[in-house]
Amino acid sequence: MANYIKKDFPTDNVRRFLEPGPIVLVSSAHKGETNIMTMGWHMIMEFQPSLVGCYIWTANHSFEMIRKSKQCVINIPTEDLAAKVVKIGNSSGRDIDKFAEFSLSPKSGTHVRAPLINECYANFECRLVDSSLIRKYSLFVLEVVKAHVATSPKYPRTIHYRGDGEFMISGENTSRYRKLFKPGML
Amino acid sequence: MANYIKKDFPTDNVRRFLEPGPIVLVSSAHKGETNIMTMGWHMIMEFQPSLVGCYIWTANHSFEMIRKSKQCVINIPTEDLAAKVVKIGNSSGRDIDKFAEFSLSPKSGTHVRAPLINECYANFECRLVDSSLIRKYSLFVLEVVKAHVATSPKYPRTIHYRGDGEFMISGENTSRYRKLFKPGML
Repeated sequence: MANYIKKDFPTDNVRRFLEPGPIVLVSSAHKGETNIMTMGWHMIMEFQPSLVGCYIWTANHSFEMIRKSKQCVINIPTEDLAAKVVKIGNSSGRDIDKFAEFSLSPKSGTHVRAPLINECYANFECRLVDSSLIRKYSLFVLEVVKAHVATSPKYPRTIHYRGDGEFMISGENTSRYRKLFKPGML
Repeated sequence: MANYIKKDFPTDNVRRFLEPGPIVLVSSAHKGETNIMTMGWHMIMEFQPSLVGCYIWTANHSFEMIRKSKQCVINIPTEDLAAKVVKIGNSSGRDIDKFAEFSLSPKSGTHVRAPLINECYANFECRLVDSSLIRKYSLFVLEVVKAHVATSPKYPRTIHYRGDGEFMISGENTSRYRKLFKPGML
């Protein structure tokens, strides 16, 4: 597994890593317990404040932990963690301690009590800022209040879920269309 | 440009193409006018009904067209269309007819009046089913009511925006983690 060295990253630019659509791991803590869930349904909703909408199913053990603690961390795993990502998504925190079971290292954040997953490429500390859409849509509106991103490589090799057990692995990164953008539209 | 042959696709499985997070083109029609916008902020919200949440900025010419017509089409472009995707995102339907300007072919849908973009790999006809989040979050909750997907290739080579003029191009597709899933979790 990668051992990333990370630095602070501007919260209003986390779209750089979330907008391409990777599977993420969401870590949480509540009443002395921690948990991790695998999440594929998320979207950027605003740059500033840095808002991310996340679908968290009521049946997930993390659902009540995040709803009640009003905090979590969105972690970006790279392909070296793919098997663990699947296993995390196929087990429940009701039955196991996922950090221990999958040999992942919890690391303290600076703004939330939920633990960062040290082995992930990036960690976004989040606060639940709007819980009004949870009941109807299982939609948690989170604000990224602190972002930690690996200094290298520049682009993570992320995994993107297609359903039915299939993943797309992120490919080439390119700036070759950059010249077609108007300056204000970058 | 690709000339895709398409067939009907189950609406409850469009996550296959949207969950990996590609940039999409959203086409609309209202009062005799058509338009296309480039969109990067979207998420699956439900399988059945097939719901997709989309962020459409108030400044987009498409905003009022979709809000008023209550319809649109989400089109999945592949890398051969990348330059057009950028140009569409950097121009306004107030000034130009984007289908004509970018030599794209509008095709009639079966469930909505908004035109499909024939050159795209997939076309998802959508109805606006919840407009209550538009005011606060510019969030349109759409239901995919009809899906058309190319019969070949199996996996589209999609483009994923990172901001700052940079794209990630979709890479390898793999089933090698499939055996780790529990049957009910696929």
